[in-house]
Amino acid sequence: MTEQMQRIVLARRPEGEPVAEDFRLEEAALPDPADGEVLVKVHYMSLDPYMRGRMDDAKSYATPVPVGGTMEGGAVGEVVASKSDAFAPGDYAFGMFGWASHGCLPARELRKLDPAHGPLTAALGVLGMPGFTGWFGLNEYGKPKNGETLVVAAATGPVGSMVGQLAKAQGLRVVGVAGSPEKCALATGRFGFDACLDHHAYADGKEMRAALAEACPDGIDIYFENVGGKVLEGVLPLLNVGGRIPVCGMISWYNAGALGADAGGAKDNLPKLWRTILVNRLHVHGFIIADHFDRYPEFLSEVGPKVASGEIGIQEDIAEGLENAPEAFMGMLKGRNFGKQIVKIA
Amino acid sequence: MTEQMQRIVLARRPEGEPVAEDFRLEEAALPDPADGEVLVKVHYMSLDPYMRGRMDDAKSYATPVPVGGTMEGGAVGEVVASKSDAFAPGDYAFGMFGWASHGCLPARELRKLDPAHGPLTAALGVLGMPGFTGWFGLNEYGKPKNGETLVVAAATGPVGSMVGQLAKAQGLRVVGVAGSPEKCALATGRFGFDACLDHHAYADGKEMRAALAEACPDGIDIYFENVGGKVLEGVLPLLNVGGRIPVCGMISWYNAGALGADAGGAKDNLPKLWRTILVNRLHVHGFIIADHFDRYPEFLSEVGPKVASGEIGIQEDIAEGLENAPEAFMGMLKGRNFGKQIVKIA
Repeated sequence: MTEQMQRIVLARRPEGEPVAEDFRLEEAALPDPADGEVLVKVHYMSLDPYMRGRMDDAKSYATPVPVGGTMEGGAVGEVVASKSDAFAPGDYAFGMFGWASHGCLPARELRKLDPAHGPLTAALGVLGMPGFTGWFGLNEYGKPKNGETLVVAAATGPVGSMVGQLAKAQGLRVVGVAGSPEKCALATGRFGFDACLDHHAYADGKEMRAALAEACPDGIDIYFENVGGKVLEGVLPLLNVGGRIPVCGMISWYNAGALGADAGGAKDNLPKLWRTILVNRLHVHGFIIADHFDRYPEFLSEVGPKVASGEIGIQEDIAEGLENAPEAFMGMLKGRNFGKQIVKIA
Repeated sequence: MTEQMQRIVLARRPEGEPVAEDFRLEEAALPDPADGEVLVKVHYMSLDPYMRGRMDDAKSYATPVPVGGTMEGGAVGEVVASKSDAFAPGDYAFGMFGWASHGCLPARELRKLDPAHGPLTAALGVLGMPGFTGWFGLNEYGKPKNGETLVVAAATGPVGSMVGQLAKAQGLRVVGVAGSPEKCALATGRFGFDACLDHHAYADGKEMRAALAEACPDGIDIYFENVGGKVLEGVLPLLNVGGRIPVCGMISWYNAGALGADAGGAKDNLPKLWRTILVNRLHVHGFIIADHFDRYPEFLSEVGPKVASGEIGIQEDIAEGLENAPEAFMGMLKGRNFGKQIVKIA
């Protein structure tokens, strides 16, 4: 009998918030690696907000997951078979294996991990794509300066916590926004933020603005954008002249379909934003981290030691079992995770 | 009898489009220059879209004109009295004299002009603030590259025509938008644009987009923003990955009061723009040229000779008489001017 693997496929495209029926757990024959390929048994897979975008077929920066295709994503695991000189069974590797128990990819698409350098899961969060996103966006486009004020939402997630901790170390006042009192306590505690606001306490952008104004007495110089919605609405009027907005995501709007005119309740309008950009001479930069992997080694050599020394703190939320990945994913989109969302496969 | 001067003051704040009653022509005693000051008899004054902003009391980058105060603006004229060693009667100078027949300012706020270097009026347009705005925004934030496509509206105005001509000289495909067939002919004729669209021919952003798509077969790399409205709406979906948007103005929205939710009919929304910025990794930069006058000498030394040689063409629209400035200004906001709007005072 052939050995089997499990994977989660996109059963159909979601309308608005994904539901359980949009996903399907399938069995498949375990592939044999071809020449140059490596078969990996996955231990941990990553769940990230960008995956919501892959479920739609709207034009975006990446190809959508086809209906019936395996959900995309990064994961880490152990090599079980290799037809490449670069990997041997027992090696640990990161790769885009998708939501699956096993992955088979060309060796050149994998990154070897040294388990002595910290937990395997770090490659999915703090030292992986999310941490790199925070580091790159903050330094390249945020251009932080000692004494300035930075605001970042999803403050306890792997992007927000990286941004906040790096900015704090550079002498900025750092104000987070997060989704519960416990998350806010984590932000101001382990992550060292100066303040953190629970967005559930504020009904709309106007209330958000009032709370942010109090937390940011000198205005806001950098808004690291990963959520959109009422946080953005609240931040815009408080931005200082010369403010910077690196835009890496907008999770609050991801479920709004094609982000049409009825998106999310945030019906703030273009002319108002445009005027703010002009009057306050703002610099807004959209970026997709996949464009910038040439900077990854620099990130790793700078931030790796800080993670190892504990200077940069981590918080992970680990769900158990591939079959529970959809639920964990849907929960994450609602902010139910507490730190970087990971699924333990085996 | 004391000698008199004339000036135009803000009689009241406009609601929406300015009307004649918002302005008032006044007489006043001609001032005597104090120590260090210079009295100038104005020959030509400039009318520019930014002046509409000064008429509102909304928070902006500059102090509003107070009700009863002289309308602000740059002008050029001849020194008639001087208590500064730097200027002598008969000298020509540029200064922020306002909408007035005469101006009295400290010598350090004036810039001496050499009439041998071209017409006095050039200091108000092509070699003044508007031309400098185009040059700075294009080079600093547009970062033009040979073979790219640039779109600029108000293509025959002093900003748009500068941007288009400079970009054309750097090997870009340049597509203008303007407000009449005659203006489009001027853009593609004297100013050398590759194409120019008459925005009156397109009912909304969607129609604008279709026409722009045809004129920009390789998409749009730089959108030099000075109008907002349906041109912006039409441009956004056509921007290429890595596109740049220098934002120096948004004249189509200036009459919409505080640019609230009902601005101008362009109710395009923030989530859609934000998604475009992210997906296409756009770089959006608001700027106010007054922040960058340290670069003015560089501009003058680079562009001055090109104006003198005719490499950069000019088009001016000269109204006669201070008393006609309000009408010329209101007409300019409606696009009735044909080139840089100037008022000849004496």
